[in-house]
Amino acid sequence: MAGNLLVAQSGGPTAVINASLAGVVQSAVASGRFGRVFGALDGTLGILRETLVDLTQEEPAIWKLVQQTPGAALGTSRLKLTDAHYDRILAVLKVHNVHYLCLIGGNDSMDSAWKLSRLAAHSGYELLVMGVPKTVDNDLAFTDHCPGYGSAARFVAVTMRDTCIDSWSGKLSTPVKIVEIMGRHAGWLTASAALARASTPDGAPHLIYVPERPITLEQFLEDVEAAYRRHGYVVVALSEGVRNPQGELLGTAVEAVDAFGHRQLGGVSAVLAEKVSERLRLKARFEKPDTMQRSSSALVSQVDREEALRAGQEAVRALLQGISGKMITLEREEGPTYHCRTGLADLDKVAGVERLLPEAYLDTNGHDVTPAFLDYVRPLIGEPLPPVGFLRRHAVPAGLPPWIEA
Amino acid sequence: MAGNLLVAQSGGPTAVINASLAGVVQSAVASGRFGRVFGALDGTLGILRETLVDLTQEEPAIWKLVQQTPGAALGTSRLKLTDAHYDRILAVLKVHNVHYLCLIGGNDSMDSAWKLSRLAAHSGYELLVMGVPKTVDNDLAFTDHCPGYGSAARFVAVTMRDTCIDSWSGKLSTPVKIVEIMGRHAGWLTASAALARASTPDGAPHLIYVPERPITLEQFLEDVEAAYRRHGYVVVALSEGVRNPQGELLGTAVEAVDAFGHRQLGGVSAVLAEKVSERLRLKARFEKPDTMQRSSSALVSQVDREEALRAGQEAVRALLQGISGKMITLEREEGPTYHCRTGLADLDKVAGVERLLPEAYLDTNGHDVTPAFLDYVRPLIGEPLPPVGFLRRHAVPAGLPPWIEA
Repeated sequence: MAGNLLVAQSGGPTAVINASLAGVVQSAVASGRFGRVFGALDGTLGILRETLVDLTQEEPAIWKLVQQTPGAALGTSRLKLTDAHYDRILAVLKVHNVHYLCLIGGNDSMDSAWKLSRLAAHSGYELLVMGVPKTVDNDLAFTDHCPGYGSAARFVAVTMRDTCIDSWSGKLSTPVKIVEIMGRHAGWLTASAALARASTPDGAPHLIYVPERPITLEQFLEDVEAAYRRHGYVVVALSEGVRNPQGELLGTAVEAVDAFGHRQLGGVSAVLAEKVSERLRLKARFEKPDTMQRSSSALVSQVDREEALRAGQEAVRALLQGISGKMITLEREEGPTYHCRTGLADLDKVAGVERLLPEAYLDTNGHDVTPAFLDYVRPLIGEPLPPVGFLRRHAVPAGLPPWIEA
Repeated sequence: MAGNLLVAQSGGPTAVINASLAGVVQSAVASGRFGRVFGALDGTLGILRETLVDLTQEEPAIWKLVQQTPGAALGTSRLKLTDAHYDRILAVLKVHNVHYLCLIGGNDSMDSAWKLSRLAAHSGYELLVMGVPKTVDNDLAFTDHCPGYGSAARFVAVTMRDTCIDSWSGKLSTPVKIVEIMGRHAGWLTASAALARASTPDGAPHLIYVPERPITLEQFLEDVEAAYRRHGYVVVALSEGVRNPQGELLGTAVEAVDAFGHRQLGGVSAVLAEKVSERLRLKARFEKPDTMQRSSSALVSQVDREEALRAGQEAVRALLQGISGKMITLEREEGPTYHCRTGLADLDKVAGVERLLPEAYLDTNGHDVTPAFLDYVRPLIGEPLPPVGFLRRHAVPAGLPPWIEA
């Protein structure tokens, strides 16, 4: 089957989504088996709007730089395809002789890819469709992990490590710090904050809360107070989507009670920092790095980038084998050193399934992850955290009676 | 004069405050001219509490690692010394035979250093005192810039660049992003966001607000709307301390009017993001990296680290020359390539003076910096931003009539 290939990037960008794009385009061009390689601007919206670009005409040297560039090089959107869209999409594909489609994206994109593949089959239009996984949330099923996650996890691990050391050294000024991490339903990214402990004092961050483990405000405050009593300071990592046992977003639930229904704007970390100040009388600050987590060029995981590239390459290879209706997966091989091979999963099985942190990765204390999770995530962030060192602090014997603080 | 040297770190940590510490300790030990080199834990509080450590006993190899470690290696605090403290401090210095004192810190620390130096002179105790500048706020006078600022500016420039590209590529999902940057009174750090434009599309970040240029909510919303109309998205960099023309913190002033006096918790960026959503009907998000700006090990400026080290070394050299009551300064030399020599400023002149962004660095439009500021800041962040690349996006001619969006 001759024809052109169309690729699109969909959903939230990651630091390595362009490596997958480069993998698709470079493999497709190198194969010589496609007419032209088109890109749709702004995700599936670009197919509807017929805003296509000819990627075959790009300078080959640009792909090395594009791979190091955050954001989605083609632009992206969050359009959820509906029945109203499909006739138009098929018409656009037909008029441009597109018989191969790669969608780089998360759950919704895999759903769109599946529907397009089914629709084309029903209407008798020859279209092979392949999904390339991408999400910092790491919540796609049937794959060991998702390209994009390792780099975001590296950002979280390294910046959490650094900000924990900052907190430790300044604990007499501000003893409580709450860091809000992306993840509305799945706690994979927040959990990666535990990697910081490889090089922080006192096991900081001390408390890790994920949406999979509901928590009450009372329990949270108890946990913070206990950790403060033990260490003299507390660093908390928590997911933006952390919930109470009633399933309500914790930040929203807490402010609803306290603020006469006014919506607090700072997210859950701001609400909880305020509660710590108010109820525990401990100075607290919060940080919310938000999209910095998914766009940091300085903290890309090389493992992640290589896998993102490979996922794009494998999608083209599968299309050339006549395969359709699948998503590329990463399958971790058994053995002492980390290695993943690629595989395939059915798009209809992937679509609509949200993979949460399993019980085995969650400590029963409600505010931590297990060593099994650390073993899972460690190889994904690439090289170890940049080294740090601490003084031994050889105490000088006191020569005076203790100072009585006023 | 024989005697021991005591060093302390004070105020908020920076990513390179430990380089200054290493500079002091290594130079002091290498000189062979001091008895022992002590460190006070937790800033000047450690002098009061007599929690001293003997830095002479540290493994020499640790200093290389300590210099790469964020936070203050000796711990820090924000204690403002008062008359009630001075007798105790003198007693501690005397009992440990300390005749040389180095304080690494900002404005308040220079004030403390000055008072201690004067006090010792009055009481006839031989004490030479030297200040080593340190602040991400860059607001100390009589120095071209402050160690710590270059690394924080590098963090802001690089992460702003990355998050601007993220915004550009996802503008159809979330067209407005507001990034809140440290700086309660001085806008030096926020201004460094302009360095991102060297490699962003559309001159993002489009709007830069600093405390030196008061702004009304109405003007802010007008600016955002105009930038949105022009580019289809807007990225704003603003100081936590941005104010209205009445001198009130803008976030506090806005929420006081709107929220029945309830304090909004998210800071000014959260308040303004809410206003953009409400009044301009544009989806807006905010990010608040907070202490990540001053602690990032991955985004240290090598120039900054080297200067921080040198400032510590120079402090010891000055003490050995019998100089006291001064702060080390950095003086930029004229010429085509960047170079700073060190100098000295009187502690009493430095203490209590807050150096704000001068008019020459602020654009008259109220939301930008000038090319002169870029020339000032560019060499301080070290090597250029990591390279990025963008596709040329060769358009494919449309084959269908335009799509009428529902």
